[in-house]
Amino acid sequence: MKIDGKPYRTIWLANDGWSVEIIDQTLLPHDFAIARLRTVEEAAHAIRAMLVRGAPLIGAAAAYGMALAVRQEQDDQALSRAHDLLLATRPTAINLRWALERMRRRLIELPPSERAAAAYAEAAALCDEDVAINEAIGEHGAGLIRRAATNRGGGTVNILTHCNAGWLATVDWGTALSPIYKAFEEGVDLHVWVDETRPRNQGASLTAWELNHHGVPHTIIADNVGGHLMQHGMVDLCITGTDRTTATGDVCNKIGTYLKALAAHDNGVPFYVALPSPTIDWTLEDGVGEIPIEQRDGAEVSALTGRTADGRIETVTVIPKGSPVANYAFDVTPARLITGLITERGVCAASREGLRTLFSDR
Amino acid sequence: MKIDGKPYRTIWLANDGWSVEIIDQTLLPHDFAIARLRTVEEAAHAIRAMLVRGAPLIGAAAAYGMALAVRQEQDDQALSRAHDLLLATRPTAINLRWALERMRRRLIELPPSERAAAAYAEAAALCDEDVAINEAIGEHGAGLIRRAATNRGGGTVNILTHCNAGWLATVDWGTALSPIYKAFEEGVDLHVWVDETRPRNQGASLTAWELNHHGVPHTIIADNVGGHLMQHGMVDLCITGTDRTTATGDVCNKIGTYLKALAAHDNGVPFYVALPSPTIDWTLEDGVGEIPIEQRDGAEVSALTGRTADGRIETVTVIPKGSPVANYAFDVTPARLITGLITERGVCAASREGLRTLFSDR
Repeated sequence: MKIDGKPYRTIWLANDGWSVEIIDQTLLPHDFAIARLRTVEEAAHAIRAMLVRGAPLIGAAAAYGMALAVRQEQDDQALSRAHDLLLATRPTAINLRWALERMRRRLIELPPSERAAAAYAEAAALCDEDVAINEAIGEHGAGLIRRAATNRGGGTVNILTHCNAGWLATVDWGTALSPIYKAFEEGVDLHVWVDETRPRNQGASLTAWELNHHGVPHTIIADNVGGHLMQHGMVDLCITGTDRTTATGDVCNKIGTYLKALAAHDNGVPFYVALPSPTIDWTLEDGVGEIPIEQRDGAEVSALTGRTADGRIETVTVIPKGSPVANYAFDVTPARLITGLITERGVCAASREGLRTLFSDR
Repeated sequence: MKIDGKPYRTIWLANDGWSVEIIDQTLLPHDFAIARLRTVEEAAHAIRAMLVRGAPLIGAAAAYGMALAVRQEQDDQALSRAHDLLLATRPTAINLRWALERMRRRLIELPPSERAAAAYAEAAALCDEDVAINEAIGEHGAGLIRRAATNRGGGTVNILTHCNAGWLATVDWGTALSPIYKAFEEGVDLHVWVDETRPRNQGASLTAWELNHHGVPHTIIADNVGGHLMQHGMVDLCITGTDRTTATGDVCNKIGTYLKALAAHDNGVPFYVALPSPTIDWTLEDGVGEIPIEQRDGAEVSALTGRTADGRIETVTVIPKGSPVANYAFDVTPARLITGLITERGVCAASREGLRTLFSDR
């Protein structure tokens, strides 16, 4: 999407034709800087240190990391070393494993002399596929926003989102934000309520940053506010992303999603979840019962980083000494609270039957 | 309640027998300090600058402010000047107006020579009455916690609370936390989930601070977490305070209370609201429709104050430049989501009929 009028992806080949450039997301939202990756080690560092984050973008960065490795050494051992180095950066990321396996399978069958060119081509293809999937999600979801605009009969359509499922988490477009960008570019009069999304504040820092620089009207709110807005007719629809979706349509997403879905249900506000179909886990039936919820470092709750009035970046502790903290990172929203799933193949009901209408081949 | 074993109120007469001491709450949770008030001007400053906060405590501080004024000058004009000075500190606080009016009515009927002694006596009585009301709330609410302990058949009772309705907001005991302190002192095995309560973080800063120093087991969580805990049987009951309650049992409280009540309802977790009966507005029927919701400064959302690793207190901005912020301070929880109201007269259903059983005299 655009940053102050200039189109960007989150990862791209530099003008030299071989090094790779990324947005250093560790500096957002306070600074915008581009980092250059010249070696597989630099690519591994970028993933490990979260200069890039978001499952699709991690996969894309790993693919280009393989290309940077193969550019220097083309033999089978070098291929394996690069694969293992990159896989170890974020051991639990499914997309990372999938992208690396795809790169290895593609390259191992080729003579070493052809591997470098093929690696760059495969990484580029992987990126383009991600963009195409997300753009398709955007096209299907934009129809729902246009319908909400028609239903309200004029005026601004208000959309609430939680966390960051934007273009910064993918190669471009994003998932939950893709329909918003599509509708905005079509000229729909819209405004986004951005949950700050404690404890890591990805809404206030990343979602607000990308909407602001693309020019999409938005307002940051505390996570506590959405229910009040829905009670007063100030939200026309909600769209969030998902980290994992069951075969029955339950959605595991950033902690707090469930609370917003409850409020939407209580107030008759449509609640949609946008997802690329690879995030569907066809083996799961019961999200609340079967999906283990990661507990993360309590420091994410107890401390925040921001900019002081005189421009320094500081981290401050905001809780009393001696008080324990718990940090559950995700929750599960039962399918009964979800109006529909927005996928690259279209919109369907959040149920086994709904998913079957689009994915009878799975 | 206790701070590290030593009993405190939030306001008391100093050892000199005439000056007034308070806990300077602007320094919490990072520092604990006692401030001394020697004049009505110092009392007014303490209310205005929020060294004291919470409706009952503001009323008590205003009453002692009148006593400090009358100690120096006893005539009718001095009485009026002190009344007006104190009333202007927090113009919308109902308790402040009520306490000042009570002090003026009591003093104006007396000869000037008797006013100083009477003012101190009346302020002390007002404080003792607040303590008695809150302690009665605690006794009635502790029964609900004991019942939850019996229902779960052993193990720790988990209670979730939102914002700060603790002893720091009153003269002693608090409202929502009073049943927790009572049950804890009776030896009930309990643990409190403390919502951090964005944007002002009164849960993470004040509630956690008071529970920690009294020795009550607790854990701070982000506001997004309660729903997940309730889905997994990790909350036995919720207790919150309220700023305003309708004659039909709708509750206006700190923003986000509604979302927790929805989650409690969805998971069959009892949701109680503790209140001194003067916060019931008998003229209101429909909380969502009739209660205007205050919007506060967006800086409460965009900036946080805390302690750096090397001990400095710093304020940092945590959102991108250029993104707007909205800051709705309260929301309304409809009576249908509330299991019961805990008052100084007992526990009743959150309905007109329920309230009538306890307050047939209103």
